[in-house]
Amino acid sequence: MRDLTWSSSEKIVAKRAFDMALNKELESIMARVREMANDIRRPADLWSMEQYLTQRRNEIDDKYDYRYSQLPIIFGRLIREGWLTEDDLIGLGSGKIDYIRTIAKL
Amino acid sequence: MRDLTWSSSEKIVAKRAFDMALNKELESIMARVREMANDIRRPADLWSMEQYLTQRRNEIDDKYDYRYSQLPIIFGRLIREGWLTEDDLIGLGSGKIDYIRTIAKL
Repeated sequence: MRDLTWSSSEKIVAKRAFDMALNKELESIMARVREMANDIRRPADLWSMEQYLTQRRNEIDDKYDYRYSQLPIIFGRLIREGWLTEDDLIGLGSGKIDYIRTIAKL
Repeated sequence: MRDLTWSSSEKIVAKRAFDMALNKELESIMARVREMANDIRRPADLWSMEQYLTQRRNEIDDKYDYRYSQLPIIFGRLIREGWLTEDDLIGLGSGKIDYIRTIAKL
């Protein structure tokens, strides 16, 4: 892992990007749950919804781990999944950006 | 426990009442979940909904235990909770009805 130190301005960029991706992802879950609720016809649909919520909660808890040592990996994944773009990370050092880009392409 | 034997006609009455109460309860959960989904504003509302669903699923699994030895207790509870009335149990022997009534008043 290169560039382990984060400057104050990098920390601000990182926090903003992290929160933005998390909010987008949570908004998409809220939208999906509203749709699922409209489609509830049978009791089994309730338990599918419960399972969906549990899976999303666990995934969000695992993924959004705000430790500086983990952030490049998280940002790479978030770009790969479409929750962030490289533009959201303007202001990070080029070493970090290169590393994030590598992860994003995995 | 009195009257442990159930005649064929009592079994039909019991099955119909059991299924009716379960369906009513599941319908009420479906209605509640649709309401909760309309009221989702924040991510925390998602996890409240997940918790509500898990609790209801566990409660339903525990409560609806179709063993003849348990049915009087279950029917008593379902009357107490308003999912059944005594009229739904017409056809059961008077010993069972008395016992169910006792449980319902607990």
